[in-house]
Amino acid sequence: MRILHTADWHIGRTLAGFDLLSTQRQSFAALRQVARDHHVDAMIIAGDLYDRGLAAENVVDTVNDMLRTLNLEDKLPLLVISGNHDSAPRLATGSEWYANTQLFLHTRLAEAFTPIVLGNTQFFLLPYFEPAMARHYFDDDSLTNIQSAMVPVVNKMVAQFDDTKKHVLVAHFFAAGSTHSGSETPVNVGGLDAVPLDLLSPFDYVALGHLHNRHAVNAERIQYAGSLVKFDVSEVQQRKGVYILDTETMEREFVEIPQTPEFLHITDSFAHVLDPGFYHQIDTDSYVQITLTDTEVIPDLMSQLRQVYKRCTGVDRLHGLASPMLAHTVDRQLDPMALLNQFYRETMGNELTTEQRGWAADALHRVTRE
Amino acid sequence: MRILHTADWHIGRTLAGFDLLSTQRQSFAALRQVARDHHVDAMIIAGDLYDRGLAAENVVDTVNDMLRTLNLEDKLPLLVISGNHDSAPRLATGSEWYANTQLFLHTRLAEAFTPIVLGNTQFFLLPYFEPAMARHYFDDDSLTNIQSAMVPVVNKMVAQFDDTKKHVLVAHFFAAGSTHSGSETPVNVGGLDAVPLDLLSPFDYVALGHLHNRHAVNAERIQYAGSLVKFDVSEVQQRKGVYILDTETMEREFVEIPQTPEFLHITDSFAHVLDPGFYHQIDTDSYVQITLTDTEVIPDLMSQLRQVYKRCTGVDRLHGLASPMLAHTVDRQLDPMALLNQFYRETMGNELTTEQRGWAADALHRVTRE
Repeated sequence: MRILHTADWHIGRTLAGFDLLSTQRQSFAALRQVARDHHVDAMIIAGDLYDRGLAAENVVDTVNDMLRTLNLEDKLPLLVISGNHDSAPRLATGSEWYANTQLFLHTRLAEAFTPIVLGNTQFFLLPYFEPAMARHYFDDDSLTNIQSAMVPVVNKMVAQFDDTKKHVLVAHFFAAGSTHSGSETPVNVGGLDAVPLDLLSPFDYVALGHLHNRHAVNAERIQYAGSLVKFDVSEVQQRKGVYILDTETMEREFVEIPQTPEFLHITDSFAHVLDPGFYHQIDTDSYVQITLTDTEVIPDLMSQLRQVYKRCTGVDRLHGLASPMLAHTVDRQLDPMALLNQFYRETMGNELTTEQRGWAADALHRVTRE
Repeated sequence: MRILHTADWHIGRTLAGFDLLSTQRQSFAALRQVARDHHVDAMIIAGDLYDRGLAAENVVDTVNDMLRTLNLEDKLPLLVISGNHDSAPRLATGSEWYANTQLFLHTRLAEAFTPIVLGNTQFFLLPYFEPAMARHYFDDDSLTNIQSAMVPVVNKMVAQFDDTKKHVLVAHFFAAGSTHSGSETPVNVGGLDAVPLDLLSPFDYVALGHLHNRHAVNAERIQYAGSLVKFDVSEVQQRKGVYILDTETMEREFVEIPQTPEFLHITDSFAHVLDPGFYHQIDTDSYVQITLTDTEVIPDLMSQLRQVYKRCTGVDRLHGLASPMLAHTVDRQLDPMALLNQFYRETMGNELTTEQRGWAADALHRVTRE
């Protein structure tokens, strides 16, 4: 079989205040065409269909229409899980009926242990879950993080293995050793909410959602699909798309999904980016993040830029501004403790003491558990 | 056939701050038992399944479970429309799949003109709609209110009539001449958003939702189901329940749904309502609205009352308080213009002028249209 693997649609997301819905509808149309052109037998959607649990009505309408189109019009079996951005109970609406047309939508941990069998493969659909759900489900108070919770989860799946079949895990979590993009909502603090790759070794393929960079983890049988759309300036160099998995060989092929409009990052002087000789060479309908090489304050900067780049997502300075107070940037890749450290050092001029670090770690731990 | 007719579940509603979910689950269990005991062939749910468009996750879960139980477990065909309290796009989630198991859920005006045929009857499921939707659908700018919009709506339904069948309309609107309860959200201003009863004469039966008092309209073939639960002190004397319609004779029978807990209204003196000799004779687990005959201020009144009546929904005074400023009550049955009149008279000491009335009518009209 050929299985298309996608994830992280985040329908309803905005980019610097721009509504991405029309962009996302175009990505979806391209995705649908890929599924047809490659004659895929089923599609995996590995979580975060919605950008937020409480989506606007037109966003609900859009997601409903996408699932309807793929499943009822294109007659495509769908293997879907909820991600951390979805409201599991809301997304679950209708799921008992969906299964009649091979739309398999799992939103509760308990559902993960009933494999969906298509052709030669057992698919285990593991929705995003929190440690508390695993503690409740396994009645085991020691499961205080995802790393420990994944042990009984995988064991219980392996107990359902049919040895004559291949075994594919569909999941939505942070795989240990992965790299974050700027557009994700970090759910890991301290590493224990990352899933060690060796725990996943029983599976022939692990189709992941959560991280928006498809190269976030580099492993033989473990793959993030990545988002369909570039959500952040850190992703402008990425090629976005889907994977097509062959369940005989377990080899996968990447198929790019075009970005309409594109998302560009321009680094240049103010005079040059507003020079027609420059901007006539690029598609100014693109989302454009602009990093200026100038250091002086420029009045009415954004409105001048948006006269040419109507979808300008933001402007920053390569060398900072003459006024040092405005030049401060935060490295969003850092984990919360490192960010706190950086903030404390810049504000107080010295490092956190061991005692202060302890207090912060305790607070972070309590917040994360809640 | 025997068709059970219910409406106005308003799942997620609160009563004076009390969560009604457990009460509503018990009403639902009783409703389900009525459907079984009377061997009904299908169930009409005439709108307002939810109390609000953006329902909490546990409320979504509850409604999903109710529909699943009736349709998938009890194998009951369901004829469902959205009401003014439902979010049509959210409620519509899954509807294309539901029809496979005879859960017919119509949320858009366009769907009202495809009758659902069960046995000897064509059912026309007309969701709650606003005049703007009718203007768009019929491409007719003259449809500025529900009264005018219902003319082409009914004509288009009549054009689909199979003369060998009976014709039942399921709808959610204010039927002209009906009486309001205190628990409804009025959508009518000035009478033009009321549907004249003679417009409904082509139908053998009109199964309505919207008004919570099943006696709101008194007509041979037109029936409000009323809510399953008493939502307001104005409803304490009402018997709540469902109708069972015989599609051969078009006769309907009322079947009461018990209130657990009950909702009582006690009018008596403070001393008497807190006298064990009195309150041991009634179920103090009930929701209880208390109207005191006393006129003096009583410190810490509600907390004293709630020591006995833990579900006390409110307290007011039969004869007002000694301080006249606190004695003011508003007649919630009045329409907005009458309320404004009352307010102006009490505040200013004289009536609105004709010019002032004109301004207010214009403003109300604009607000209503928006």
